[in-house]
Amino acid sequence: MSPLHGRLARHGTSGPGAPGRKGHRTLEGDDVTTRAWQEAAIAAMPDGVADFFAGGAGREVTVADNELAWARVRLRPRVLRDVSSVETHTTVLGTPVGLPVLVAPVAYQRLLHEDGEAATAAGAARAGSLMVVPTRSSVPIEEVASATGGPWWLQTYVLRDRSLTVDLVQRAASCGCRALVLTGDTPYVATKPRDRANGFAPPSGMVAGNARDGAEQDPSIDLQTIGWLAAIAGLPVVVKGVLRADDALECLDAGAAGIVVSNHGGRQLDGAVASADALAEVVDAVAGHAEVYVDGGLRSGTDVLKALALGARAVLVGRPVAGALAAGGAAGVERLVAELGDELREAMALTGAVSLGSLTPDLVAKAPQ
Amino acid sequence: MSPLHGRLARHGTSGPGAPGRKGHRTLEGDDVTTRAWQEAAIAAMPDGVADFFAGGAGREVTVADNELAWARVRLRPRVLRDVSSVETHTTVLGTPVGLPVLVAPVAYQRLLHEDGEAATAAGAARAGSLMVVPTRSSVPIEEVASATGGPWWLQTYVLRDRSLTVDLVQRAASCGCRALVLTGDTPYVATKPRDRANGFAPPSGMVAGNARDGAEQDPSIDLQTIGWLAAIAGLPVVVKGVLRADDALECLDAGAAGIVVSNHGGRQLDGAVASADALAEVVDAVAGHAEVYVDGGLRSGTDVLKALALGARAVLVGRPVAGALAAGGAAGVERLVAELGDELREAMALTGAVSLGSLTPDLVAKAPQ
Amino acid sequence: MSPLHGRLARHGTSGPGAPGRKGHRTLEGDDVTTRAWQEAAIAAMPDGVADFFAGGAGREVTVADNELAWARVRLRPRVLRDVSSVETHTTVLGTPVGLPVLVAPVAYQRLLHEDGEAATAAGAARAGSLMVVPTRSSVPIEEVASATGGPWWLQTYVLRDRSLTVDLVQRAASCGCRALVLTGDTPYVATKPRDRANGFAPPSGMVAGNARDGAEQDPSIDLQTIGWLAAIAGLPVVVKGVLRADDALECLDAGAAGIVVSNHGGRQLDGAVASADALAEVVDAVAGHAEVYVDGGLRSGTDVLKALALGARAVLVGRPVAGALAAGGAAGVERLVAELGDELREAMALTGAVSLGSLTPDLVAKAPQ
Amino acid sequence: MSPLHGRLARHGTSGPGAPGRKGHRTLEGDDVTTRAWQEAAIAAMPDGVADFFAGGAGREVTVADNELAWARVRLRPRVLRDVSSVETHTTVLGTPVGLPVLVAPVAYQRLLHEDGEAATAAGAARAGSLMVVPTRSSVPIEEVASATGGPWWLQTYVLRDRSLTVDLVQRAASCGCRALVLTGDTPYVATKPRDRANGFAPPSGMVAGNARDGAEQDPSIDLQTIGWLAAIAGLPVVVKGVLRADDALECLDAGAAGIVVSNHGGRQLDGAVASADALAEVVDAVAGHAEVYVDGGLRSGTDVLKALALGARAVLVGRPVAGALAAGGAAGVERLVAELGDELREAMALTGAVSLGSLTPDLVAKAPQ
Repeated sequence: MSPLHGRLARHGTSGPGAPGRKGHRTLEGDDVTTRAWQEAAIAAMPDGVADFFAGGAGREVTVADNELAWARVRLRPRVLRDVSSVETHTTVLGTPVGLPVLVAPVAYQRLLHEDGEAATAAGAARAGSLMVVPTRSSVPIEEVASATGGPWWLQTYVLRDRSLTVDLVQRAASCGCRALVLTGDTPYVATKPRDRANGFAPPSGMVAGNARDGAEQDPSIDLQTIGWLAAIAGLPVVVKGVLRADDALECLDAGAAGIVVSNHGGRQLDGAVASADALAEVVDAVAGHAEVYVDGGLRSGTDVLKALALGARAVLVGRPVAGALAAGGAAGVERLVAELGDELREAMALTGAVSLGSLTPDLVAKAPQ
Repeated sequence: MSPLHGRLARHGTSGPGAPGRKGHRTLEGDDVTTRAWQEAAIAAMPDGVADFFAGGAGREVTVADNELAWARVRLRPRVLRDVSSVETHTTVLGTPVGLPVLVAPVAYQRLLHEDGEAATAAGAARAGSLMVVPTRSSVPIEEVASATGGPWWLQTYVLRDRSLTVDLVQRAASCGCRALVLTGDTPYVATKPRDRANGFAPPSGMVAGNARDGAEQDPSIDLQTIGWLAAIAGLPVVVKGVLRADDALECLDAGAAGIVVSNHGGRQLDGAVASADALAEVVDAVAGHAEVYVDGGLRSGTDVLKALALGARAVLVGRPVAGALAAGGAAGVERLVAELGDELREAMALTGAVSLGSLTPDLVAKAPQ
Repeated sequence: MSPLHGRLARHGTSGPGAPGRKGHRTLEGDDVTTRAWQEAAIAAMPDGVADFFAGGAGREVTVADNELAWARVRLRPRVLRDVSSVETHTTVLGTPVGLPVLVAPVAYQRLLHEDGEAATAAGAARAGSLMVVPTRSSVPIEEVASATGGPWWLQTYVLRDRSLTVDLVQRAASCGCRALVLTGDTPYVATKPRDRANGFAPPSGMVAGNARDGAEQDPSIDLQTIGWLAAIAGLPVVVKGVLRADDALECLDAGAAGIVVSNHGGRQLDGAVASADALAEVVDAVAGHAEVYVDGGLRSGTDVLKALALGARAVLVGRPVAGALAAGGAAGVERLVAELGDELREAMALTGAVSLGSLTPDLVAKAPQ
Repeated sequence: MSPLHGRLARHGTSGPGAPGRKGHRTLEGDDVTTRAWQEAAIAAMPDGVADFFAGGAGREVTVADNELAWARVRLRPRVLRDVSSVETHTTVLGTPVGLPVLVAPVAYQRLLHEDGEAATAAGAARAGSLMVVPTRSSVPIEEVASATGGPWWLQTYVLRDRSLTVDLVQRAASCGCRALVLTGDTPYVATKPRDRANGFAPPSGMVAGNARDGAEQDPSIDLQTIGWLAAIAGLPVVVKGVLRADDALECLDAGAAGIVVSNHGGRQLDGAVASADALAEVVDAVAGHAEVYVDGGLRSGTDVLKALALGARAVLVGRPVAGALAAGGAAGVERLVAELGDELREAMALTGAVSLGSLTPDLVAKAPQ
């Protein structure tokens, strides 16, 4: 049974007269769209927590623009192709995944659900995805690793106290981590007006031994850090936060194995270009030399399809996962990722594409004004 | 008496002091604009039904963009031309019609009015239009054929059970159908959030023997299907759902007799380019080799004029017809189509064009931003 | 005393500490902006009348776009020029006027004020402007002519009963009319949804002997009509309603003495290009061969300056005059025109321009998006 | 300790777990964003005063566009640069300042706070900035000079009574003024609808002996005025209000030492191009021949960074300073300027720039539409 068939059976979209919804992944009822239930879960949390996850830097221009930028892309579908079988399996850095949707690193997930990153890891694995575990995981990474049956990467901040970083990445390597994702856009954590207005700070102990309370990032890291990290961990290093072709090339020259086009979901430099707008430039520069991923503002299967048509190998999704975790723990995360897969398969079929390899740039165009 | 004169006599727009409105096509009173009464009729229906007809896929980006795209086109009228006679007669695939406004296929019309597709067919014919009868007509196509005194085409889904399709198109050919309109953009029916939220599904039996409850489209159809259909029905085949020049050319190469530029009214791939934005590309490619029609977001005579100036042979109108059917049955449909004709004649006169052949691309321009 | 000095004395804008407002042209108090008091006067009228003057054709896209198009133009002022004297006198077709702001033809002005066009003519003349009297004046044109001490032109519709037109233009020539303004964009009066919804029609007798109740325009007029009109009246003919370079050139070839770039204030072909957007094309084509005027959406002195910088010889203002007439009769019209002159002089001074001849295209640019 | 470290210590943004806010510059509580507290202070003032400072000319198109134009600029940050030390010291006309944010001239500051310009001068100096004292200072300039420990310039209007201007600039030179800022865009004070509606005029005596109540600007000044002013004061002259490359070059030819790209905060010619949109043109023309500053709509550290990346040597900030003065006198002004410095350092670090010299044009791009 193809993945598409699975979707159709689940949601009854295979044709007129088919039963509405089977509900076997229902949480509080799936009579709302994918997007609504996660957003509702975030909105229902205490203000400080909701704002911490939903908010961004400055006036949140980039938070908003990230979503708008995907909406500015239009699709140019093909018709009358045989789409009876649609396939979303791929690999990222050689690791097989069931769909090109990875789980972005999100700090302090126990603020959202008591099982925190362990629940996210379990849900992501069950849906065929790969989780990027945050340095500031609120569950010890060993527990996250054992909770997931699937592959995972470690998002890495290089801390001023380098010994903390060395320890963490070596522990990660020991318990199955396949790659490090070095965050390049956060030499300092940006001021976020909502957090400042709320007086928000995560409770102590939230870093669960993976870092140390209040440990700061080292703002002196540079391109050489890529090679250093790879060496101490014995793992490939992906650099996250790149928005320019020249930076991408310099990262590859310095040893990066991949690039995540990202502005940290609008949480760092407000006014930074939307990741959808930066993607093509990076893809063009990197060409076939390294895999390029993208995050920021991706909210639907058609958004994912647009990213892949623009050259991304896979996308990372953050805030929707946070909402899904809050709404339903591991089951919520599994449901979210599975729905994105369903939506992607539907979008591919309606675009005339049967595999990720057939998602080519001619399928997208800039929306006219 | 010219068609324009007819309009003027009907609506009193022939000059100052002319009587306001004659009302012989009045339904509940025509003291509202053309657009308003249809929309009001749809809005007055039960939520599930109203949403089924008004809604679209995903976030309905394409539903909205279809209308906006026509509004983005500006007109560049000529002055001081003799427009005492304005003519809208034309042919589509050789069949004469009184105006270049066809009735788009809309499924399950008995949800809107007890007489369903039969009423639509009668109203369309009385107004000089041509109806495209849907595969999922809620009235047997033979009854639709006998209700109309005018020409009609059959919208065709190729179902997994091919015998159903063979039977339907051959029945259609037997009772006067002039062409098949193969829908190319619906290998699967897309998920529509409103229908999902409403738990909407059409009642059983609604396909009236033209299909079978729950019969699904065959997602494996491809370009060869065009020739197959033409052969089994002995009718020309128009492909609907094309948004690209290359697809249009491939369809013609595969035997298509015409192209409908369409994104299914935003009901299939959300984010697909607006049909108004795709039209010129398809017209340029197809040039004089085949007729090009367009649907999606056309709501007024000036919209129709824009489409024709951009090279369409005729337009198809869907949701407004659904609203008109709901508001007044056959008389409602007749009134809607006649009003669009009135508006088109007025727009032509004010553009300095006396015939459809004089609607040239220099009459339109992109709206400045 | 320069015109600018006059403004400064009137409104106290000559510098800090100057007295606020002298009020000698005050109506109900000028503690509101120029725009507000006219709009309030229109809004206070019975719905049918307010809508007749404020409304437009179709969805009023062009009504709105006319104003937006001026707002899309940005000014690029010069600094440190000697602007101690600013001059707005000019000529139109050789007739001196105090400022390049003419009064546009507006039908049935007795609906707005009991003195109708006679009051408008008097106010316009006192402010140094020139009035274009409408064919459908609600005051006999001889009375309008005697009420004004200033120059005037006659807006001309060619009616199906040509004898009415011959009679009117010859009467006009006899009582001092200096030119005819042939409306080229109205072979038929367009349907206006607001009027239709209101069942609005002007009361009988409102054409005051200048036309005949219900007399319709002749839709068969063409370019030859220009020469015919000029010959029967012995007056120069300006063509109003031109939006294209080719039309402008053809009108000049057919004998036109000038061009008004106009879309009839959005009251005829909805979706027609905004007059501000069409102006440059017409100016470029006509170059120094004929004077080009423009109307539509001009609401302030900076709008007037933009039009002149784009090459217009003068502008025509309609709806604001209608509001001013409703608010204060002749005094209202005088105040409005004088305020537009004040605003124009201020704008010129702040742009570094001391005469209309120094309003060059380099002073304007398209607003970035 | 680097300036950046100062920021981090003050606002606790140095990393997760760091204490929230130290509050030593708290006024009524800094649990609101920088922008909010100033705006609240202005909004709390009597209407006439609030409108005088917040309002602009005409329909305030340029007031709004000034802010929007900065928002239309997107940032293209670099990653993985060593930003452990970030430096904002620079010079303006050779005078050292702690950050490239100057205080714009704002008239009648005693309307905002009883200590008026003296408080602003003191606060600006404590934050390392340079104040431009207005001709219409409501505190004698000698008192302003003695209140500040820092450098200052004098904004200069040339009044009709030239002796007033000669006296003022020579007094300024005598008490430490380093340069004159000649306002080039105000031959007359523009009509401001809000002031007119409010009947607002500053109380008599508000010019504190620096000018004379009601003394008007001389509208006959021209480019030669630059040299005349420099000669009588023995000071360099910067021209403020320039929006075009040609004007900038002519000012330099006439002896200007610098240029402020400005439209007077939208208070003079409504519809004038936004200063952010005019900046690049002026910078390109002036190249390395003179320093270029810019004001208008700058509200955050990322806005400042954008201006510098586009080639400005420094920016001037007006309305936010007025709000800060109203909210907290000298301490308020100091806090505002310091916060802008904090924000600039954070933005630089997140852009990968360690000094003002590394803010290059490749860091900015136009926002896609």
